[in-house]
Amino acid sequence: MVPIARGTSRDIRVANRFEVLRHIIAGSTVSRQRIAAETGLSLATVSNLIGELLEADVLVEVGFEDSSGGRPRGLVSVNPAGGVLVGVDVAETYVHVELFDTALSLLASVEEELHPEENRPAQVVGHIVSGVRAVLARGGAAPRRILGAGISVPGQVDRGGGVSVFAPNWNWHDIPLRGLLADGLSMPLYLDNPLRAAVVAELWFGAGRGREDVIVLNLGTGVGAGLAFRGSLYRGATNSAGEWGHTTLVLDGRPCHCGGRGCVETYVGAPGIMQHLRELDPDSPMLRAGDQTATIDALAAGVRAGDPVAAKVIGETARYLGVAIANVINLANPEAIVLSSWVAARLGEPLLDEVRAVVSRHALRHPLAAIDITLSELVGDPVSLGAATLALEGFLSAIGTRAAHLHR
Amino acid sequence: MVPIARGTSRDIRVANRFEVLRHIIAGSTVSRQRIAAETGLSLATVSNLIGELLEADVLVEVGFEDSSGGRPRGLVSVNPAGGVLVGVDVAETYVHVELFDTALSLLASVEEELHPEENRPAQVVGHIVSGVRAVLARGGAAPRRILGAGISVPGQVDRGGGVSVFAPNWNWHDIPLRGLLADGLSMPLYLDNPLRAAVVAELWFGAGRGREDVIVLNLGTGVGAGLAFRGSLYRGATNSAGEWGHTTLVLDGRPCHCGGRGCVETYVGAPGIMQHLRELDPDSPMLRAGDQTATIDALAAGVRAGDPVAAKVIGETARYLGVAIANVINLANPEAIVLSSWVAARLGEPLLDEVRAVVSRHALRHPLAAIDITLSELVGDPVSLGAATLALEGFLSAIGTRAAHLHR
Repeated sequence: MVPIARGTSRDIRVANRFEVLRHIIAGSTVSRQRIAAETGLSLATVSNLIGELLEADVLVEVGFEDSSGGRPRGLVSVNPAGGVLVGVDVAETYVHVELFDTALSLLASVEEELHPEENRPAQVVGHIVSGVRAVLARGGAAPRRILGAGISVPGQVDRGGGVSVFAPNWNWHDIPLRGLLADGLSMPLYLDNPLRAAVVAELWFGAGRGREDVIVLNLGTGVGAGLAFRGSLYRGATNSAGEWGHTTLVLDGRPCHCGGRGCVETYVGAPGIMQHLRELDPDSPMLRAGDQTATIDALAAGVRAGDPVAAKVIGETARYLGVAIANVINLANPEAIVLSSWVAARLGEPLLDEVRAVVSRHALRHPLAAIDITLSELVGDPVSLGAATLALEGFLSAIGTRAAHLHR
Repeated sequence: MVPIARGTSRDIRVANRFEVLRHIIAGSTVSRQRIAAETGLSLATVSNLIGELLEADVLVEVGFEDSSGGRPRGLVSVNPAGGVLVGVDVAETYVHVELFDTALSLLASVEEELHPEENRPAQVVGHIVSGVRAVLARGGAAPRRILGAGISVPGQVDRGGGVSVFAPNWNWHDIPLRGLLADGLSMPLYLDNPLRAAVVAELWFGAGRGREDVIVLNLGTGVGAGLAFRGSLYRGATNSAGEWGHTTLVLDGRPCHCGGRGCVETYVGAPGIMQHLRELDPDSPMLRAGDQTATIDALAAGVRAGDPVAAKVIGETARYLGVAIANVINLANPEAIVLSSWVAARLGEPLLDEVRAVVSRHALRHPLAAIDITLSELVGDPVSLGAATLALEGFLSAIGTRAAHLHR
C-alpha cells in the first residue's frame, strides 16, 4: 500500500509538482520527455505540470533538443528571474539569513549575532526583520518578486498557526511569531524548526537526493533528528517527530533539562561533550567554561594535533553517539544517516570514523548492511537552505489558489 | 510533499484500490458516492476502481438506495463467494492457520503445536502445509477460489524472494520457504513477519483504522514494532524496520542474544520478565523454569489475586517498557501505540495502567498529548488476520496483470 491512498487528487498534483521541479533543478535544462522517464509520470501529466510552472514564472522555455528523427523536444529550465526566496536560521546565538533564486542558488547572506540575553520575542523578531531586509538589499532583490520566507526557529513549532509553541532554551511558550513578523515583513512566511529544514535540504540537495528513507541528525547544543520516509519529510501526528535527543540511552543516567534522565542529548550535545572532557580532565586547557563553540573547536584542534585527552573525548562521545545511531538504524532501517549542524561539522571525520565502528557493533546485520552514514556535504547553512526550500514548497502548493497571486 | 511523488500511476491505482476496498469492508454495503466522499477520490475514479473489483469477483452489486430526488444509487458489497484467503502465523511454539472470506471474516481456524526440537525447515514447512490443508477442509473451501495465503514467520524475511533470511531462535539462514511450500500448496504465497502482519491487521481492522501514524508493539518471547506512517505499512530500506526490541535502553545492561547489551527485549520480553521475577524472588512459585507461558499466566493470576511480588514484577516491567515506549513516542510522534501479542494480552490492563503512568513522566509534552496507548482489541490472532490481509493486498496489486488470473 502506498500512502497516497489517503490523499486527494490535489495532494497528488502538488506532490508531483514538487517532484517535477526537483528534477528540473537537478538536471538544470531538461525536456518533458526526460522528466517523464525519470519520475514515472505520464508525459501528459508532466506537460501539464510544467505548463503550470511556466505560467507561475518558476520555469522558462530555453530552446529545443534533437530527438533522433522525432520532433525537436522543448527544453525548460528554472527561471532565474522568477523570484527570490528567503531562508532564515534562527539559533540561540545567531540569526542567519540567506537569499536564493528559485533554483535555490545562493544570492546573498547576512548573519546577525544574538546575545544570550537578547531572547525576548520582540528582540528576536527585530533581528529577523533587519536580517531579511539586509539580505534583500544586498541581493538587489527589491524589484523581484519574493515568493516567500522560510523561518526556522528552535523547538516545537505550530507551522499552520505560525506559532513557536515551545523553545526550551528561551523558555518561550506559544509566541505568535508569524503575526509579530508580519508587521515588518510583507511576504508569505513559513515557520518550522531546524530538524525539518535540515532534512528537507538534504532531500533536495544533499545525501537524500534519490533516496527514500533518510535521517538527518543535527548535532549542536541540542540534538535531534529530521526524518524523511518514502522520499518526503515525516512530521508525525503533531509535527513533533524527531526528538531523538530525548530518547533514553542510559536508564537513570545524566539528568536532562527535559526532566528525564539519560537522554541521548546529555551525552552527545555540546554540553554533554564538555562534560566528558571535564570528567576525563577537569583542568584541561581545552575546556572553555561557558563557551561551547570554543571548547568544541579546541577538541577538534586537539584531535588533529594527536592530543590523547581529545582523542579520548571523541571516543567517549562516539561510544554514546554510535549506540544512539544504532538504535535509530534498528528501529527505522533508513538508507542514509547524515550528521549535520555545527558540532558534526567541527569534529568531522575523526568522530565519524569512531561512530561507524561503534554502529557496526550495535546495529543488526541487515539494517547495518543497508546504511550509509555520512557528514553533511551541503555547502553553507543547511537550515537556511532547507527553510527556503520549505518556502518554495509552500509557494508551489499555493499555485492555482488565490494565495499564490496575493504577492505577485 | 506527499510521498506518492516517487510513485507511478500504477502505484496510485493499486493504493486507491486498497483504500476503496477497505472502505467497503468497513461500511459493509455502500454506494460509490459515499466511497468518493469518504476517500476524497473523484466519483469517476471510484466507479472505475469498483468496476475492476466487480470484474475480479471481489465485490458484488447488491441493490440500490434512494438519493432524495436523484437517480437511485447502486450499492456494492464484498462478494462472500469471491474467494478465500489463508493467514498463517508461524511462531516458535505453534503454527496457527486461519481461513477468511474476502471481507476478512473468519471462516475456520486450525492450530498445530510445534515442539521446540521441531525447528528444521522441512518440519516447519510440513506443519504449515498440513495446517493449511486442514483449514481449507474445515472451511469447506475446496470449490472456492483461493486468492492467496499470507505466511508470517519470525525474524527477517525477504518477501520478494520468499526467503526466511534469518530466524534467530531457530538459527535459520536464507531458507527458501516459498519454494519449499510451493510443492505442497498451489496458491499464491506471500511471506512476511509478525511485526508487519500485526500492524496491517490494526490498520485495516483495529486501532489503526482511520489513523495515519500507528505503531504496534508485539510483546512475546521476542519484542518488536510494526510501523505504519501516513496510513500505510512502513518497511524501511530493506524490510528490516521495527527492531525496537534491539534498541539500547540501558547502556552496558543485560546481555542480549543479538550480541548487544541492554536491549529493550532483555527487559520486556517474556524471558526478561521472568528474570525480573527471579531477581525479586528466586523461589517464587510463579516461576516455572523453562515455561514462559505458564510463568506469565501465573504472574497475571498473581496480580489479580493481589500478590505483592507479582505486582512488583509488573511495576518493574512497566518501568522499562514505559521508557522504551516513551522513546518511540519522542522519536516518531505517532497517534496510537497498540500493545499486541501474547504477553500483552495476558498481563493486560494492570500492565497498561502502569505503562501509561511511566510514559507520562518520560514522553515530551507535545507528542504525549497526541498519543493513545491501548491493548489490541482485535478478536482472534492478529498475526493470522494480518497475514491474510497482506495476501489480499497482494491479490489486489495483481489485478489486471497476468498473475491475478493464474489461480482462477
